[in-house]
Amino acid sequence: MGPVTVLDALTYPIVAAPMAGGVSTPALAGAVSEAGGLGFLAAGYLSPGVLREQIQAVRGLTARPFGVNLFVPGDPAADPEALNRYRDRLEAEAALYGAVLGEPVSDDDGWSEKLAVVRETGVPVVSFTFGCPTRNTVASLKAHGSSVVVTVTCLDEARIAAEAGADALCVQGPDAGGHRGTFANTGKVPDIGLIPLLRRISAQIDLPMIATGGLAHGADVAAVLVAGARAAQLGTVFLTCPESGANPTYKAALANRRFPGTAMTLAFSGRPARGLVNRFLLDHSAEAPVAYPHVHHLTRNLRAAAATAGDPEAMSLWAGQGYPFARDIPAADLVTTLATQARTALADATHRFAR
Amino acid sequence: MGPVTVLDALTYPIVAAPMAGGVSTPALAGAVSEAGGLGFLAAGYLSPGVLREQIQAVRGLTARPFGVNLFVPGDPAADPEALNRYRDRLEAEAALYGAVLGEPVSDDDGWSEKLAVVRETGVPVVSFTFGCPTRNTVASLKAHGSSVVVTVTCLDEARIAAEAGADALCVQGPDAGGHRGTFANTGKVPDIGLIPLLRRISAQIDLPMIATGGLAHGADVAAVLVAGARAAQLGTVFLTCPESGANPTYKAALANRRFPGTAMTLAFSGRPARGLVNRFLLDHSAEAPVAYPHVHHLTRNLRAAAATAGDPEAMSLWAGQGYPFARDIPAADLVTTLATQARTALADATHRFAR
Repeated sequence: MGPVTVLDALTYPIVAAPMAGGVSTPALAGAVSEAGGLGFLAAGYLSPGVLREQIQAVRGLTARPFGVNLFVPGDPAADPEALNRYRDRLEAEAALYGAVLGEPVSDDDGWSEKLAVVRETGVPVVSFTFGCPTRNTVASLKAHGSSVVVTVTCLDEARIAAEAGADALCVQGPDAGGHRGTFANTGKVPDIGLIPLLRRISAQIDLPMIATGGLAHGADVAAVLVAGARAAQLGTVFLTCPESGANPTYKAALANRRFPGTAMTLAFSGRPARGLVNRFLLDHSAEAPVAYPHVHHLTRNLRAAAATAGDPEAMSLWAGQGYPFARDIPAADLVTTLATQARTALADATHRFAR
Repeated sequence: MGPVTVLDALTYPIVAAPMAGGVSTPALAGAVSEAGGLGFLAAGYLSPGVLREQIQAVRGLTARPFGVNLFVPGDPAADPEALNRYRDRLEAEAALYGAVLGEPVSDDDGWSEKLAVVRETGVPVVSFTFGCPTRNTVASLKAHGSSVVVTVTCLDEARIAAEAGADALCVQGPDAGGHRGTFANTGKVPDIGLIPLLRRISAQIDLPMIATGGLAHGADVAAVLVAGARAAQLGTVFLTCPESGANPTYKAALANRRFPGTAMTLAFSGRPARGLVNRFLLDHSAEAPVAYPHVHHLTRNLRAAAATAGDPEAMSLWAGQGYPFARDIPAADLVTTLATQARTALADATHRFAR
């Protein structure tokens, strides 16, 4: 099935963003797909075996298309001195939570094993973050029936994805929660916003675009479709659904107006990501090295211990700029609510323009 | 005439952004308004007498509504040592262009005199940038028949504007070219993008919104209307119209793909503004102090000399993220083109959603 076919076959052009770390459960992906959107599993940090089980679980919930997102391995090099300094800095944090810091090592997150799983299981949509798979990898996935989506954050990345044979682009703007998908991890990310980014890419590259970053309402979904996208991808608003696997402390933090907003940080993972501004982010962002996934592994136990303690101040509270609109409603209801809001917004704007 | 009335009375919900420094001529403002959009004069840096002449000139071109934008004076305090260091740094630049650096002083840009001009001439729409006028000032403008628009870049500023009695908000996102309208000049600006910013403000404040920042195509206009705005404001794409007063070297630079993109900088004015990345921006951004309008005055002769020499590398080449789409077409044609594109984009998205 071609890319246009998959996206066009959706009842609603609404994609639930893959959210790694336990958020995107089979229940969430299945509910979204069954409701007429496109649900996603997040293969990042999962073992290949668990990924396979999750794919089977989604298939038990829906016969409709769904997706799996994979992290593309990056450059394993990192400055060992900077990593040591950051480890020393975090020792007191670890002690505070009774955690032992992890080893700041690099790994490829089971890249080839997980590719084998999505190939063997013929996942309808396979999307990639943090880089672009090779032409051969893309071709092999297509040969196994998958549509291939590559997450891009600038025009150059979109060109690379098109040349690799991607079927569609997930165009991610700076308002997105969690990690930016930027290919090379330099610690910086492109500052072009979602609307001009869609404009620039659509002017140069003839591929369907899934727009994402800061979308929180059906009117936002409709807005990016009008701006040229084929579908809209939303993460944070699905994170607070009952089907989401997000930790209750994390869910509660999103509704807690004590947090002053979101910011980009390297502090938790060594790669730029947007999260609620909590104590850990404030205390460590300025000193965190550019080193992914090294810093992710370094802080893993610490974050887990904070979550166990119910303390949001040392958890990675990934959140997009639309987070104040996240609600605790079933994912299927959210999909249909977004669709209704989108239709209303389109009709209202069309009416105003018709005068 | 109330705010909704002015914006709703437009044939097209398209506003040509006020662009100070000679860009927004009466010819440009008049052409946009006469074509059914809302043209703007930029009072910033003009003398009160020239502003009065420009208002009369627009009235000679159209009987339709138009606007005037004023800069709200800010805190005149600045770090004298930082200013001296920056002056020393720029001496070589000035010598290169045969210019004498200006005095890095603060002024109020003729605030009360220009307010008197817009009151006396009963300008239909008066918008403000860099701050919010007092309740009394807003009330006096309304009493003289003006609708009052305040430029905001975050929810807190929108609240202040609403409390001051503004009729509408110009909601400016980070992709905007030129200065960000952020009230307090701290050197930093809010990083929330246009779509979530519109969403957050519309959820809290019941005022019509004019959306701006990075919009370059009629589909972008339609997108922000769908996202909740009453109108869309575009600057950079009007800058290359024949009616614009932009220097030919500046216009040519926008079409010159040698420039790698845009960036935020304090280098030219001491206030965050987005422009094409040229040599001056690269060489001085890291050292420029937060001091507006001090740095504006300091670099003024230097920028003028570079413009006279036809050298874009030391000019302030303000440009929004949509700049690659700026074309040399008459402003009236641009307005109708944008409107046609907007209608097409709305129809296409509605069609896709109807399946």
